[in-house]
Amino acid sequence: MTKTEPPILLTPGPLTTSDQTREAMLRDWGSRDEEFIEMNARVRRRLVALAGGEGTHVCVPVQGSGTFAVEATLGTLLPRDGKALVLVNGAYGTRIARMCEVMGRACVTLETTEDVPPDPEDIARVLTAEPTITHVIAVHCETTSGILNPIHGIAQVVADQGRALIIDSMSAFGALPFSLADSPADAIVSSANKCLEGVPGMAFAIIREAALLEAQGNAPVLCFDLYDQWRAMEANGQWRFTPPTHVIAALDAALAQHEAEGGVEGRGSRYRRNCEVLVGGMVEMGFRPFLPDNLQAPIIITFHTPADPNFDFTRFYDLLHDRGIVIYPGKLTQAESFRMGCIGALDESHMRRALDAVRSVMIDMGFVTGAPAEGS
Amino acid sequence: MTKTEPPILLTPGPLTTSDQTREAMLRDWGSRDEEFIEMNARVRRRLVALAGGEGTHVCVPVQGSGTFAVEATLGTLLPRDGKALVLVNGAYGTRIARMCEVMGRACVTLETTEDVPPDPEDIARVLTAEPTITHVIAVHCETTSGILNPIHGIAQVVADQGRALIIDSMSAFGALPFSLADSPADAIVSSANKCLEGVPGMAFAIIREAALLEAQGNAPVLCFDLYDQWRAMEANGQWRFTPPTHVIAALDAALAQHEAEGGVEGRGSRYRRNCEVLVGGMVEMGFRPFLPDNLQAPIIITFHTPADPNFDFTRFYDLLHDRGIVIYPGKLTQAESFRMGCIGALDESHMRRALDAVRSVMIDMGFVTGAPAEGS
Repeated sequence: MTKTEPPILLTPGPLTTSDQTREAMLRDWGSRDEEFIEMNARVRRRLVALAGGEGTHVCVPVQGSGTFAVEATLGTLLPRDGKALVLVNGAYGTRIARMCEVMGRACVTLETTEDVPPDPEDIARVLTAEPTITHVIAVHCETTSGILNPIHGIAQVVADQGRALIIDSMSAFGALPFSLADSPADAIVSSANKCLEGVPGMAFAIIREAALLEAQGNAPVLCFDLYDQWRAMEANGQWRFTPPTHVIAALDAALAQHEAEGGVEGRGSRYRRNCEVLVGGMVEMGFRPFLPDNLQAPIIITFHTPADPNFDFTRFYDLLHDRGIVIYPGKLTQAESFRMGCIGALDESHMRRALDAVRSVMIDMGFVTGAPAEGS
Repeated sequence: MTKTEPPILLTPGPLTTSDQTREAMLRDWGSRDEEFIEMNARVRRRLVALAGGEGTHVCVPVQGSGTFAVEATLGTLLPRDGKALVLVNGAYGTRIARMCEVMGRACVTLETTEDVPPDPEDIARVLTAEPTITHVIAVHCETTSGILNPIHGIAQVVADQGRALIIDSMSAFGALPFSLADSPADAIVSSANKCLEGVPGMAFAIIREAALLEAQGNAPVLCFDLYDQWRAMEANGQWRFTPPTHVIAALDAALAQHEAEGGVEGRGSRYRRNCEVLVGGMVEMGFRPFLPDNLQAPIIITFHTPADPNFDFTRFYDLLHDRGIVIYPGKLTQAESFRMGCIGALDESHMRRALDAVRSVMIDMGFVTGAPAEGS
């Protein structure tokens, strides 16, 4: 592989982006100049529309990774005397609970195993029993396993109980159907670099304006004060602190491509087809997905580790890499597993290329089936 | 101006970068892949060497703007029961004091006016009088006015008093001589996007390893825990949370160009020449710099607002913009002023082009001298 032949990234991000998106980074922008301000406003408008939040919600972008936007949203919206219920079925939910702890916000968790979505009825029970809980924090697609959590049902029950909901929709936003119009939430958070297919370096929260207006003074650090960030941006269209101009230009280009592809429906169809081809081919070779089909989001697929003694993950990773396929180098689930993403500027031809690479690596490594051990 | 003819940015950043730097963003990287890990390690090594911190200090990068790295460094190094003395002679010093306030860290300031550097003897007096002060926070070049603060003298006095020093060297690092070997400090913080001429989206702190080792558990938010970020990166070479891969690739390319130019000395010489040409030309047209030559860093120059009633800043800005010159759209000093930067991938030919544009704008606007009002 040479620099002119970049790898195919089958990861949860950073992921493969289009030439057009990367080429949008070939010019410099003055971040306080009208041209940039217009571009930034266009990006924010489009993101609010994608969330179905027009008229009720505003887009507050933040520098950094998706985790930065999640922590900034929590820090801004959770009052210092608030209390969070975090729904945990993977590493990202666990990380959210850890953030609450570091920030000194009261927090309880409702945990299910990594292959079990939270049950809205259980959430209702916890909320009824603990009236001091002010906010529920849910992960839309838990990237740890790739499980799709029932976000609509969660939103309904949280609204019924009169609590606020914050959704980490990192790896789902822009590809899975969702609308704030029928799934009420105070905030939904995502990143430029997942299903929107921008490059990493910025993330955003779509926040209910009325909730944000009450959030002044909550933030634990200045940079993560999304109330302040929003007020400043409303006043003059500018970011408070230097924005990643090139990354935003890439997102602007990526959002135009998202729209041209047919928006959430078009993007979601391609990913579903990618997932179908990838999972189908892997299952044919004996690999077994960690999740049943009905819980599997078409984003990232976790496979059980093959039982064959000739399988060694590091070697598997390296040999795939030599063939131009980069997967996630490790596992996040508690079960022995590995992950392959199916998002990014890729289609089923890339998935077939990845399957060919897996087939060829199996021959090199000398194992004939990807089947896991009995009972895994 | 068309997209193929980008503007010359005479701003404090984002600034003009080279084609080579931007073209480094034309490929995608898996952030946990060996190729990226090597690049990231190379960038970190180079930054420690530039600071003269080899063997004593480590580089901890952070997603976001320079302000993110400043706040993360303060939050990590200031113990919750610590007390900061912030040296303030501009907006960035003021912002640092505000950060301490938001984070709930005790903080006092030593203020001088925007055209007066802090006097090390005054600092010694304050430190002697207030033994509870644990950390002094100084701005190297205060970008508000462009004033160069006496960082070496500050470092000496802080060390003599046995306190820790944190330096915000945002707009100086990489162009002005500095070495941790003779200016002791617990941390020096800068960004990819100032004198190093990378693109915006990441920043970094060069931190004394022994100080960092004592900083566990200080951070007010998880994302800004540089102790945690460092430990994780030492363990596997990876960032904890998705890094801005393309921005780092651009910085890697920019650092190679920095070295090829002759490092800090080469970069500084070009900027000094840029400053000389720009200031010389502006003074010829009657404009008057806010600072005396001996306090002026060759980074950004503040000029008094012209007295001529035909001068209007917004129109001045727009007409320069039409000619492909983007300056900072407003002022940060308390005095009426405007600023022109002289950093970025620009040389004296660009400064002459900017001067030609100013000359032509003066004719259009109908004022013959940039001279400020008497007494300003």
